[in-house]
Amino acid sequence: MQTEKVQSLCWCNDHIRILDQTRLPAAEIYIECRDLATMADAIRRLAVRGAPAIGIAAAMGLAFEAKKIETSSCENFLQALKPVCDCLRATRPTAVNLQWALDRMMAKARAAGEKAGVVELKNLLIAEAQAIHTEDIANNRSMGLFGQDVVPRKAAIMTICNTGALCCGGHGTALGVIRTAAEQGKDINVVVCETRPLLQGARLTAWELKAYGIPCKLITDGMAAFYMKKKGLDLVITGADRVAANGDSANKIGTYSLAVLAKHHQVPFYIAAPCSTVDMAIAVGDAIPIEERASDEVTGFGASLTAPVGTPVWNPSFDVTPAELISGIITDKGLVLPPYKANLKKILCAGKM
Amino acid sequence: MQTEKVQSLCWCNDHIRILDQTRLPAAEIYIECRDLATMADAIRRLAVRGAPAIGIAAAMGLAFEAKKIETSSCENFLQALKPVCDCLRATRPTAVNLQWALDRMMAKARAAGEKAGVVELKNLLIAEAQAIHTEDIANNRSMGLFGQDVVPRKAAIMTICNTGALCCGGHGTALGVIRTAAEQGKDINVVVCETRPLLQGARLTAWELKAYGIPCKLITDGMAAFYMKKKGLDLVITGADRVAANGDSANKIGTYSLAVLAKHHQVPFYIAAPCSTVDMAIAVGDAIPIEERASDEVTGFGASLTAPVGTPVWNPSFDVTPAELISGIITDKGLVLPPYKANLKKILCAGKM
Repeated sequence: MQTEKVQSLCWCNDHIRILDQTRLPAAEIYIECRDLATMADAIRRLAVRGAPAIGIAAAMGLAFEAKKIETSSCENFLQALKPVCDCLRATRPTAVNLQWALDRMMAKARAAGEKAGVVELKNLLIAEAQAIHTEDIANNRSMGLFGQDVVPRKAAIMTICNTGALCCGGHGTALGVIRTAAEQGKDINVVVCETRPLLQGARLTAWELKAYGIPCKLITDGMAAFYMKKKGLDLVITGADRVAANGDSANKIGTYSLAVLAKHHQVPFYIAAPCSTVDMAIAVGDAIPIEERASDEVTGFGASLTAPVGTPVWNPSFDVTPAELISGIITDKGLVLPPYKANLKKILCAGKM
Repeated sequence: MQTEKVQSLCWCNDHIRILDQTRLPAAEIYIECRDLATMADAIRRLAVRGAPAIGIAAAMGLAFEAKKIETSSCENFLQALKPVCDCLRATRPTAVNLQWALDRMMAKARAAGEKAGVVELKNLLIAEAQAIHTEDIANNRSMGLFGQDVVPRKAAIMTICNTGALCCGGHGTALGVIRTAAEQGKDINVVVCETRPLLQGARLTAWELKAYGIPCKLITDGMAAFYMKKKGLDLVITGADRVAANGDSANKIGTYSLAVLAKHHQVPFYIAAPCSTVDMAIAVGDAIPIEERASDEVTGFGASLTAPVGTPVWNPSFDVTPAELISGIITDKGLVLPPYKANLKKILCAGKM
């Protein structure tokens, strides 16, 4: 099924194989997940990260744990599934794909629970997790194509964090749009913001782009504004962890900064995210829960201390870019332009028909 | 003379003592400079850094080397001084204080050369270097006072890089304004941008603020925009490495980004820099030479590699903030408001009368 050079996670029957992204680019180490604690830990400590990827990981984790439940009663089976689901749901708060994937898995189980046996239910859940994975790859391919409307034949594109094959089932979201552009023979140069504190841009995106042979330039996050001014830029494309009904989008910390800077320099700013990242239950961005992580992500790097012991830190993992700064949202169903409230609704409903 | 807790450099007769800022905050290591190569290297590799401090270091370095020149002819003495001056001048291109201090030292020597003997010239140069040092501290104290007009009684102030005692003779430029505010009993909270790639904010500014007992919050550079939006901010104050005649100001990379973000969030943005940082010979910011440093500052951290081997990098050490984004320039002669071209000229001329 997959021909990707880079594979963030994969279902291997007796385990779930996860590429430990915290070790990249220095080492390619794989984690063999065989229990809930290992999977929850892998999501929490960002061994697997990226909104779509943690959705897939949670779905696979649920299906894997479901296999182990020993009961012949469907009711007991569904009952036993709930704490597993709760544990996975609690790993990270911001990306809605995690909730979306678990909701989809549980709905599938409940719907079939009426008429299926436990063995059948277990197989259904495995199939559903794999479907979430393969659909994600197909969705990213679609997004890549829909995104081409906004990518010129020759383009300098700035991005932040990692939105490539590593963040999802395959191909990528924002980086997927960039990859499709390169595949189509467009002359693409990617400006990669390193993305402190965890350097997903430097560690992961530069690593993927090297693997794909797409030219890039790495900068620190504070250089983005001066790059726009001195070197010029055609567009910014970033991913999203949750898009509110009005188009406000939560994404990796630093994204909002890029959106403000892009506006100042009259550079179009796009979000690329599958429809599963849109949360119609949340009206505006301010209501999106923002994960704050440990201060040592900011005060240290690896074994080195970068700030005095005890320095107070603010470390939100995400920020929210208001809809008015977003030129368009590239989804797997098409490019959504403002007004987002009406147009997101339209595209999501179209998907359900 | 000095009662500072933090002293970046000091004249010790048989050597110049430099606090190696590359080792902070982990270790307080001092370099004993006894020759030109050691001093030039200390400036180049940022063991001593900050526009005013490298001016003082260069002046001290020149005076120290001058002591060693063995001749009784003033002409030969001045001749021998020239390559020393050229070597120091070439260490770093952006901060004009380095050029300013060396020009001042050479002018002093040349002016006295007509009527003084070599021994007298050597003593004059030592005295001049020490004068540059003590004047800098006094200037920073003045700047600190003049800056109070723009600092409210209770203020959240964002800054970047290090502009404290470490960057100059003592007290600090932008951080000097903040220190004076705290000394006056104002309720100050400093938001410190870590300042990648070399983390002068995290390593040096957080370290100084801890020493002074001024509360701070450390953030990564990409968090500045979201901080302004979510937490609110009263003003941004940064230093400068060179101010052009029209007010355009070169400073640590990331400063321009803060200025754009401040404008978007309607937060006043101030520069604090002594008059020696103003370069009336340069009309506009685009003409300021911008130092680009080695790519490994961006692709690595300490011994760790943060990006794949061979990743192309753009690493300008400074950016230029256009005058129109600057609310005011706090100098040692007073607060300069727009129009900068006329008002900088006025304040510099006043200083010469």
